[in-house]
Amino acid sequence: MRLTVAQLAKRLEAELVPIKSGADPDKIGSRPPLLLSKEISGVGPVETADGSEVTFISDDKHKAALEGSRAGAVIVSAHLDGLDKPQLVVKNVNAALIEALNIFAPKLKAVTAGIDPTAKLAQDIKIAEGVFVGAGVVIDDGVEIGENSVIGNGCKIGENSKLGKNCRLDSNVVIYHNCRLGNNVVIQANSTVGSTGFGYSFIEGAHRLIPHNGGVVIEDFVEIGANCCIDRAKFYNTIIGAGTKIDNLVQIAHNVVIGKCCLIVAQAGISGSCKLGDGVVLGGQVGLADNVEIGDGGMIGAQSGLSHSIAAGQQFMGSPAIEKRESFRIFGLLRRLPKMAKQLKLLHKRVEKLEAAEDDKK
Amino acid sequence: MRLTVAQLAKRLEAELVPIKSGADPDKIGSRPPLLLSKEISGVGPVETADGSEVTFISDDKHKAALEGSRAGAVIVSAHLDGLDKPQLVVKNVNAALIEALNIFAPKLKAVTAGIDPTAKLAQDIKIAEGVFVGAGVVIDDGVEIGENSVIGNGCKIGENSKLGKNCRLDSNVVIYHNCRLGNNVVIQANSTVGSTGFGYSFIEGAHRLIPHNGGVVIEDFVEIGANCCIDRAKFYNTIIGAGTKIDNLVQIAHNVVIGKCCLIVAQAGISGSCKLGDGVVLGGQVGLADNVEIGDGGMIGAQSGLSHSIAAGQQFMGSPAIEKRESFRIFGLLRRLPKMAKQLKLLHKRVEKLEAAEDDKK
Amino acid sequence: MRLTVAQLAKRLEAELVPIKSGADPDKIGSRPPLLLSKEISGVGPVETADGSEVTFISDDKHKAALEGSRAGAVIVSAHLDGLDKPQLVVKNVNAALIEALNIFAPKLKAVTAGIDPTAKLAQDIKIAEGVFVGAGVVIDDGVEIGENSVIGNGCKIGENSKLGKNCRLDSNVVIYHNCRLGNNVVIQANSTVGSTGFGYSFIEGAHRLIPHNGGVVIEDFVEIGANCCIDRAKFYNTIIGAGTKIDNLVQIAHNVVIGKCCLIVAQAGISGSCKLGDGVVLGGQVGLADNVEIGDGGMIGAQSGLSHSIAAGQQFMGSPAIEKRESFRIFGLLRRLPKMAKQLKLLHKRVEKLEAAEDDKK
Repeated sequence: MRLTVAQLAKRLEAELVPIKSGADPDKIGSRPPLLLSKEISGVGPVETADGSEVTFISDDKHKAALEGSRAGAVIVSAHLDGLDKPQLVVKNVNAALIEALNIFAPKLKAVTAGIDPTAKLAQDIKIAEGVFVGAGVVIDDGVEIGENSVIGNGCKIGENSKLGKNCRLDSNVVIYHNCRLGNNVVIQANSTVGSTGFGYSFIEGAHRLIPHNGGVVIEDFVEIGANCCIDRAKFYNTIIGAGTKIDNLVQIAHNVVIGKCCLIVAQAGISGSCKLGDGVVLGGQVGLADNVEIGDGGMIGAQSGLSHSIAAGQQFMGSPAIEKRESFRIFGLLRRLPKMAKQLKLLHKRVEKLEAAEDDKK
Repeated sequence: MRLTVAQLAKRLEAELVPIKSGADPDKIGSRPPLLLSKEISGVGPVETADGSEVTFISDDKHKAALEGSRAGAVIVSAHLDGLDKPQLVVKNVNAALIEALNIFAPKLKAVTAGIDPTAKLAQDIKIAEGVFVGAGVVIDDGVEIGENSVIGNGCKIGENSKLGKNCRLDSNVVIYHNCRLGNNVVIQANSTVGSTGFGYSFIEGAHRLIPHNGGVVIEDFVEIGANCCIDRAKFYNTIIGAGTKIDNLVQIAHNVVIGKCCLIVAQAGISGSCKLGDGVVLGGQVGLADNVEIGDGGMIGAQSGLSHSIAAGQQFMGSPAIEKRESFRIFGLLRRLPKMAKQLKLLHKRVEKLEAAEDDKK
Repeated sequence: MRLTVAQLAKRLEAELVPIKSGADPDKIGSRPPLLLSKEISGVGPVETADGSEVTFISDDKHKAALEGSRAGAVIVSAHLDGLDKPQLVVKNVNAALIEALNIFAPKLKAVTAGIDPTAKLAQDIKIAEGVFVGAGVVIDDGVEIGENSVIGNGCKIGENSKLGKNCRLDSNVVIYHNCRLGNNVVIQANSTVGSTGFGYSFIEGAHRLIPHNGGVVIEDFVEIGANCCIDRAKFYNTIIGAGTKIDNLVQIAHNVVIGKCCLIVAQAGISGSCKLGDGVVLGGQVGLADNVEIGDGGMIGAQSGLSHSIAAGQQFMGSPAIEKRESFRIFGLLRRLPKMAKQLKLLHKRVEKLEAAEDDKK
């Protein structure tokens, strides 16, 4: 896909600000001329974009790098003075960036609806129109799949599980029985949903598995990365709220309830029966202990280990996690610990000296 | 499945204690009447169970919540006074809970023995009676599978690997060559057993792989979660002892030897040649360095990093991990660090003042 | 495979030093005689190798254990005096160990080139000679696979992805579209390459996915463990440099660039746009924050969390990670914290006493 800067501006509904008002773009310094008729064929970050790419300024860090950028055009939220490249002024840079990336996305063949002959479908299932079922897929009885959903090769969908419309399961995703996915759910390759959780009772010298009678409910617009595990519930359901996004290699244990629009970064692990409100953010490799509750908008820093519940809006860090500002303060003091130890030693000597002087007087 | 409270009590071999001795159950306050003939159709935790569900009191935390519970009946280990619902008194609440969950488990179709026509079986294999082999499974030469084992779709079982009776490999599990699974081993979806370990020698400017001539031995009643990795040994075997249970996304490196009845929680990682005794518990996201040994019953807290061996029964925490009580003490002091820094500064001033007074006297 | 000690020495191009010069090997103490004609059929570590196995001394730790070793012969880099077993003196013990392990490796059937009839190949692909494509594999249009590469069962190779020669994808590996693998790349089972990264913009009340127009480039001789995730780039490519080795369950986010000959240990997680130089080592469960850069030869200790860039050769530890020696010092002081708190309290009392004495004088 190739568009002139002018065409791109139109597609992005952007106001087009030409190069340095009044200046002849063909004569700007030693840089190659950057014309509005210049063709753009991709998107790149400000540091590396070349003349055939449009770049974007979504934060001040980008702005600093803009000076030396060779990008053919730049998406901005407000006109920047003295810039030697065309500017596409938009209301929301992030939204325009998504649009631009979509415009220049590599062309892939469209998925054609249909059931691969090597897929193994049980008798009693309901597959809506427009659904694609890939090679080697196994679908058990009672399964329902909504319109235009795409089931990649090697997937398994267990008994009575239901998927909504426009879902996408990539290759080798496994959905166990009695799980429910809403509409527009995406699960990337090699992820597992509905596995039996890690619940054992130690009885007569052995760990005996506690049956997991519940399922998993994944609401609309949830997106789940690759190689994730979401365990089914012992009772009722493990629930992932609408619009929540989950990165790769994340572990979500039985009976966890996650609110809407949360972000769970890679390799985080959520223990059994935790409850997350809406808009919660867990950094990478975070661990939550059993039964922890996090209020709406709570944020847990990467690698933190949270072992108690926190209220809405709180930000915690560290392992064990404490309030973020306290954590920073303590970490700063930790690095001063060698100095403190030295000061303490020195002070000890000075006190001894004072005591000796005092003793002399007696 | 629906059972009256009386029928359920019989099934659980429980002593049935009717509602408030002497009281007419139909007249207890404003609550709906809870009769022994009431039908129970499920199990629920004390906080959320409704009148159609039986709940259970397996620890004191549950007892506190029992007051407001709407559960139709309750499984207890000893009769509780003044309770407005039927009590099922059993010897072991956890065992009765497992039984009750089994009674009310969702009905799934039984797996029918047989080899799916799309499975690709080598010539020289031994498949016992009652075995199920799913779609797209690949089984290499020399493989043996014991009675009633179930091999889910998309699995691979490499050359000469042997599985015992009643094993269950869920979808897309990969067992490399020369691995041995005992009886009643369960491995959930997308797990990998027998991958080559991470052993390299840096020779002439490149990392060269050390061949892994060994295999993996998984003993009876081991249960392994989804998306786990268990590497084969360089020498002899990586061994998982009988009755050990492993959660999701766990990494077990080459030549690790794990004892019997251990619990390894999600996302833990065990480095090469570690040795765990019997009954060891590793919390979630724990990391063990190479060659660490943990004596019987050792417990490592979640997210800890243990870099040295510990004796039987020891409990360690933190990264790097130290003895649990010391860890608690130090963490408590860490939070007092800002105060200590202030005290030290103040004390410094007071000593200076004393020194000045002392100087004045000279 | 069985070789006499003499034959093995020849195969390893080792100088063979017979048992205790001058001594009659059949008369050495109570140990069984260890003759050069003794047959060796395997390799074992010094602590456990028996008379039919050759062992090796690659570090001093091994040397200490050699005294009691029952090994039939030993690979050493220099002749050891007074040893009661034949010595194979080689230039490089690690290289000889690899060779010995290869000699005694369990025999497996060779993979035969060919396309399994259940594989689903698109029309417009190029498969070179000698390639094996396993059962249930799906290969999309535009894919190219170089000579002698082996694609295990259940793999998926997405549109336009290219693999070089001698690559090996084990079972159920998923390569998304527009990825490029060099020659001699190995990816173990259930790993995912080219999944969409975790990049969202919060727009009008919802997290909207930022399209990932880029791909993944994996250079020659890269080896990747099982159940790993390597995300595709938003722009250009996520790159894994030649000769880099990656353990199991590792997360590599979008736009990460990894240099040559790095080692990334299990469960490490590398956030978006990180740049690693050549020869970098990340310990197990390490986490890197977004945009972190690590210079050539940098080393990050296990479980560390690095949130800022570091120069070549630096070694960092801890979460948050600091310079390694400082980290050791601080951790040592941490354990002295209870003592320091006590000293501070005591000192406080002594100062109070001095102040009281001073007051008395006024």
